Amino acid sequence: MPKNVLIIGAGGVAQVVAHKLAQNAREFGTLHIASRTVSKAEQIAASIRDKGHSVAFTAHPLDAMDSAAVAALIRKIDAGIVINVGSAFVNMTVLQGCIDAGAAYIDTAIHEDPKKVCETPPWYGNYEWKRREDVAKAGITAILGAGFDPGVVNAYARLAEDEYFDKIDSIDIVDINAGSHGRYFATNFDPEINFREFTGTVYSWQNGAWQENRMFEVGREWDLPVVGKQTAYLSGHDEVHSLSARYKDADVRFWMGFGDHYINVFTVLQNLGLLSEQPVKTAEGLVVVPLKVVKAVLPDPASLAPDYQGKTCIGDLVKGTRDGKPGEVFIYNVADHKEAYQEVGSQGISYTAGVPPVAAAILIARGPWDVRKMANVEDLPARPFLELLGELGLPTRVIDATGDHPL
Amino acid sequence: MPKNVLIIGAGGVAQVVAHKLAQNAREFGTLHIASRTVSKAEQIAASIRDKGHSVAFTAHPLDAMDSAAVAALIRKIDAGIVINVGSAFVNMTVLQGCIDAGAAYIDTAIHEDPKKVCETPPWYGNYEWKRREDVAKAGITAILGAGFDPGVVNAYARLAEDEYFDKIDSIDIVDINAGSHGRYFATNFDPEINFREFTGTVYSWQNGAWQENRMFEVGREWDLPVVGKQTAYLSGHDEVHSLSARYKDADVRFWMGFGDHYINVFTVLQNLGLLSEQPVKTAEGLVVVPLKVVKAVLPDPASLAPDYQGKTCIGDLVKGTRDGKPGEVFIYNVADHKEAYQEVGSQGISYTAGVPPVAAAILIARGPWDVRKMANVEDLPARPFLELLGELGLPTRVIDATGDHPL
Repeated sequence: MPKNVLIIGAGGVAQVVAHKLAQNAREFGTLHIASRTVSKAEQIAASIRDKGHSVAFTAHPLDAMDSAAVAALIRKIDAGIVINVGSAFVNMTVLQGCIDAGAAYIDTAIHEDPKKVCETPPWYGNYEWKRREDVAKAGITAILGAGFDPGVVNAYARLAEDEYFDKIDSIDIVDINAGSHGRYFATNFDPEINFREFTGTVYSWQNGAWQENRMFEVGREWDLPVVGKQTAYLSGHDEVHSLSARYKDADVRFWMGFGDHYINVFTVLQNLGLLSEQPVKTAEGLVVVPLKVVKAVLPDPASLAPDYQGKTCIGDLVKGTRDGKPGEVFIYNVADHKEAYQEVGSQGISYTAGVPPVAAAILIARGPWDVRKMANVEDLPARPFLELLGELGLPTRVIDATGDHPL
Repeated sequence: MPKNVLIIGAGGVAQVVAHKLAQNAREFGTLHIASRTVSKAEQIAASIRDKGHSVAFTAHPLDAMDSAAVAALIRKIDAGIVINVGSAFVNMTVLQGCIDAGAAYIDTAIHEDPKKVCETPPWYGNYEWKRREDVAKAGITAILGAGFDPGVVNAYARLAEDEYFDKIDSIDIVDINAGSHGRYFATNFDPEINFREFTGTVYSWQNGAWQENRMFEVGREWDLPVVGKQTAYLSGHDEVHSLSARYKDADVRFWMGFGDHYINVFTVLQNLGLLSEQPVKTAEGLVVVPLKVVKAVLPDPASLAPDYQGKTCIGDLVKGTRDGKPGEVFIYNVADHKEAYQEVGSQGISYTAGVPPVAAAILIARGPWDVRKMANVEDLPARPFLELLGELGLPTRVIDATGDHPL
């Protein structure tokens, strides 16, 4: 029997997930979307109707911080797969709801406690991995971090392991957004989540241990396909925390591209204390969190999509040896902001994050990824995932000894 | 009978005014200080006791937005002179209290409506000058803008008129703070007032008409005594609005020195909308004015004083003709942040703003400035004011055809 699917969340990524599910509706049963503000879920359901799909989403109001409410909704609509693309603060309650009601769980980013910024590594060890046994006991599938990064880049590392090397020495994940939104300044995701990525310690896994740096302390120029020469900075990111567990003997680093303008604005805001999640009191006695005010004055990330132009290039440079001979491979994807908007009404950053969890859902529905335990993406067979992503609009390319070619 | 004096306000400038009044207590009767938060006034009164002065201040609570309360306090303590160094928003109510109770009025900055930024020129015409007749009818003296700039720089212009030229062609007021407070970023005055000076249109009086520019649009390098080469930018400032009325045929411009770092931080905050006095709503529904949050995260200007080092140079470059022969004169003062702190516990910017209204109060008490009408500083004899300022710690120097020498 085809599985019913429930999306939790109604932001830019949820919009992409909904459109991709609608395009692949033959793989699933009924389709549902739930959000605290039900009108946002209804808006996404309406955008599906506007595209002329023959399937319809049912919108539901849901407080995803309430695991009993999550479980109740899963049972009510008999959901077999839950795709959690809500705030990073709801992962653990949604996972609990899936465990209790027996549905498969997929997310795209690590759990965060709203009161803590940048916890101790490995981040997955603080919340998700503590639930491994419960997930296995319940016999459900829980796939963690199945967006692009984390997600597809984890599969790229696994592909290098499976098909290129018998020993991996280093994995450098590089994320370049060479697109332009035409605004003075904007973040591509919720500013609160976006800035939190960069205000804490930068953890990387090097020489078999966690290395600590500050944001923008270590920069490196990369010369990548399509986007050309770009400076990227050593950054903390979810996938470093899972890949370092599987590839203990390799260096695992994440590099995020930033222009000087972004760095300048970020630096000013951070140094003034405006990125703080600690409340301050105004002269008039109003208690307010500065970061929430910054979020309020910045453009809504979803509003950037219509004018977004240019391309993203995200990939893994993996170095290793096979039969004692050293080599390297760069596995990557190039996505286009305008094409993403024309297809699903979202910008490229949301597109690259929203398509992979649909591929994961299809692989659960079809069987190969329905592993009935908790898994990060690198724990699962990479080739079926990457081939399916090619069909869904995120083709993989490889630069190896034979040149630059499709997977 | 010596006149009792009432200070309204309890910020950094009020602190300087209080100390200078205490140092010159023989000129006056009893001394008083009033503030909405009476504890701040009491703190200043305590700092006077700590310096070992033989006179004491009496602290009073006062809502200076309530003109009846102002008049009642003036009557209660029989104040002959009110020095208003409170927020720029209370000028008109304090002036009304002085008119009603028959006390002399001195302020150091133009009246502002909290809801309006940068009104139409000349700014004095919007509020203060409308009360000229009432002030004359009440027979009180009201001296407007008797700080350093406006204030002393207006007297510099008048000195040039009295002693150097029979026709003035241009007055360029240059304000350079070459001091360093050692913080990442701070404003020297209340950030709300400080930023409001620069977010609106820059008005200057040139070729007999108001010229409009944006802030930081017109910059010029100046080479000044002590502080050396500094870039200053055409800015809107109170004194341009009164001097342009007296010197209709001259160009009147105000230049404020800014480092690249200040301009960068200001530009980022302004472009993001964080300097706006229009409320925004956070995702959680809290309504908040961004500028007030910026103020809350910035250092309290008074807290900068202990570490402030370096000097300020503020002066007027006046060009004109005498007996048909063209000439120019630069009349200026250099102040030292550290010396100011050691003397009165405030930084140099507060010092230069707080000493002049005390000189004005002494000249009212002694007679020469007790003109029983409303006057801007350039309407009053300049030499007694400037000579008295030299005794009080703000000596005037002049660069003219004979070289660089004290007044």
